[in-house]
Amino acid sequence: MSEGSSKPVRIGLLGRGTVGGAFAELVAERGAAVEAACGRRPEISGVLTRGEGDFDEVLAGSDLIVELIGGTEPAREHVLAALRAGKPVVTANKQLLAQHGDELFDVAREAGVQIRFEAAVAGVIPIVRVIQESFGATEISKVFGIVNGTTNFILSEMASTGAAYEEVLERAKQLGYAEADPTEDVNGADAAAKMAILARLAFHTPITLGDVAYEGIETIQPDDLAYAKELGLSLKLLGVAERRDGGLSVRVFPCFLYGGHPLAPVGGPFNAVMVEAPAITEVTMSGPGAGGTQTASAVLGDVVSILAGDAPVSQPREELTVVTDVSSSFYLHLEVADRPGVLARIAQVLGDNGISVKSVVQRGIGEDARLVMVVHECLESQFAAAVEEIGRLEDVRSTPRSIRVIEEEFV
Amino acid sequence: MSEGSSKPVRIGLLGRGTVGGAFAELVAERGAAVEAACGRRPEISGVLTRGEGDFDEVLAGSDLIVELIGGTEPAREHVLAALRAGKPVVTANKQLLAQHGDELFDVAREAGVQIRFEAAVAGVIPIVRVIQESFGATEISKVFGIVNGTTNFILSEMASTGAAYEEVLERAKQLGYAEADPTEDVNGADAAAKMAILARLAFHTPITLGDVAYEGIETIQPDDLAYAKELGLSLKLLGVAERRDGGLSVRVFPCFLYGGHPLAPVGGPFNAVMVEAPAITEVTMSGPGAGGTQTASAVLGDVVSILAGDAPVSQPREELTVVTDVSSSFYLHLEVADRPGVLARIAQVLGDNGISVKSVVQRGIGEDARLVMVVHECLESQFAAAVEEIGRLEDVRSTPRSIRVIEEEFV
Repeated sequence: MSEGSSKPVRIGLLGRGTVGGAFAELVAERGAAVEAACGRRPEISGVLTRGEGDFDEVLAGSDLIVELIGGTEPAREHVLAALRAGKPVVTANKQLLAQHGDELFDVAREAGVQIRFEAAVAGVIPIVRVIQESFGATEISKVFGIVNGTTNFILSEMASTGAAYEEVLERAKQLGYAEADPTEDVNGADAAAKMAILARLAFHTPITLGDVAYEGIETIQPDDLAYAKELGLSLKLLGVAERRDGGLSVRVFPCFLYGGHPLAPVGGPFNAVMVEAPAITEVTMSGPGAGGTQTASAVLGDVVSILAGDAPVSQPREELTVVTDVSSSFYLHLEVADRPGVLARIAQVLGDNGISVKSVVQRGIGEDARLVMVVHECLESQFAAAVEEIGRLEDVRSTPRSIRVIEEEFV
Repeated sequence: MSEGSSKPVRIGLLGRGTVGGAFAELVAERGAAVEAACGRRPEISGVLTRGEGDFDEVLAGSDLIVELIGGTEPAREHVLAALRAGKPVVTANKQLLAQHGDELFDVAREAGVQIRFEAAVAGVIPIVRVIQESFGATEISKVFGIVNGTTNFILSEMASTGAAYEEVLERAKQLGYAEADPTEDVNGADAAAKMAILARLAFHTPITLGDVAYEGIETIQPDDLAYAKELGLSLKLLGVAERRDGGLSVRVFPCFLYGGHPLAPVGGPFNAVMVEAPAITEVTMSGPGAGGTQTASAVLGDVVSILAGDAPVSQPREELTVVTDVSSSFYLHLEVADRPGVLARIAQVLGDNGISVKSVVQRGIGEDARLVMVVHECLESQFAAAVEEIGRLEDVRSTPRSIRVIEEEFV
């Protein structure tokens, strides 16, 4: 281990709830990977929680502050103090950014230090980085999507089970997809804060939470979802920020989408964001909306970015063997004599090679029959051996044709 | 204009084909936006094409080199010379990176300069940046997806029209989705080069093109796609790089996916890439696979990243008005008396307000009926006025309930 090879970066951690705890674990676990990526190993040098620690001490003993307290005060005060002290800040605090973005960014600019906040919007989807950096010189026309996992879970469940809003909300709480007090999620305020942040970045304009008109999903009836299904529609809570009539419109509202829409299949507690611009057409990004480890992972990504500075070229650090015989499920296409026992003989060969059949379609074509099947996962070498044997059977009229199949059926 | 406000960054452009030409235009068009994003305005200081310009002169007169020649030589030689001269390089050249990545990255590291190549993989999808930066400290287990737009277009067309491979390939050429010589696209070699690049980044291991086993789509029959439809499968040319049995497997092959798979709905010339890791679960990114402007836009994004250095906090530079009355399509839910003429009266109110009906579902419930309709796009204020009027009609039994609808039907 190269633990003594560089001076560690001291991280002052504000808040140690679900995300803060996961972040501390991740720093310990991935410390060597961070060092490999950017030349410096991170360590937690101090922690401030409601019950323990002193902010000034934590700040004095750290090179970088990670703010995971949430809410506006004292988070705002602490972040401003860190920036003024010339220490970069990583935060996951959407309310803070949506309400006090101007102040925070002004102070960061004056102090010449970075403030990063990937984890504040859309879970592990790196939408902040993509808008700020990849599309930093692009004239974005629209950013929209599903930015609240709780409501997307509720709407997906209502649609698939026909259950009422209240019932599904209870289930979401039990599964950890909704908080004990879900008000800000279900009334659209959480999504509105995220859209304020995205609108500011995408349109370089000082949008705050107060500029966002929002509606929630509390009044949606099972009835609406049933009719929607009949009309080929699916319901999502959408956040939309777009150029309109020479100005900007930033809103959150429940909305029906047609089946072919890229956001229509996004179900459960997932988030998805689309960015549209003339020069890029459109890019869609989706992933889990929340979760302690996922959010902590986004925070650590920001820490790496700050430490990496101008992204040095990383050095290969693993020498992995290339594996060639991997397992897969397969589709197999055969033309066979239309005689009793043919399917049995083919199934026998597959069975002898340890391969089991998942589905079969057989259809007569004159004196022959076409036999198409999907077999369950097996080693490619196993499957190749079976196919060779099948090709030699007297009843088989054509060269067997096979194509791999990904068996995973996503919900 | 602030044209004289900072010393411009001189870009030496190697190659002025479709992408090179689009890049030069974009630099002119978006120069002010680049300056706003990173403090410096770019300008093309020299161009090298097969017929004109001298490389040494272009290099001497530039601060940064953009390589869009393609192929391995003389691109390799020029890129190495630029890096050795301490000048950062942006390239879209997948063959160069897949075959000579080790050499290029070694030289860049020694020289302490950046080489960026977002445009080399998956079009406008910023997958390189996301893997290198957002997930730079994450233990990625799998990167896979559709990284060749030509073959995805061909397979989508074959599936939807039932036409043969050769016929669809001709159509793809006419539409500009396939090159005159499409060999490298249809035999999987292009996708293999991209997967070699992604595997190197994701797994920090020196994978090159020679390590990638690949198959193409030339032997796919319309028959296979017809059976696939019957079995609920859709066919894609997949690139997969994953940890397997303590090693790594990097492959490209045609593959069937079940309907619920996140990549199943990705049709036409689109690309999509999924990244899986324990700490992030999974992230999916999709967008157009190619196009001159799109690729040029990815190249410009890399230029911005190099100029921005450690991502300064960008300053708001637009003051856009917030627009509140936007237009939308709507779903409207009503309970009405089941009497002749009710639908007509309601349709009349909508018509008087300039709103046209797209679809209607009416169903009796005892003495009443439930009337659900979707109306075409109109201003929200218009719709609100109509709904208020409808709510006052004698025949209407419940408070009208409305939900927005995105009318766009994606193909």
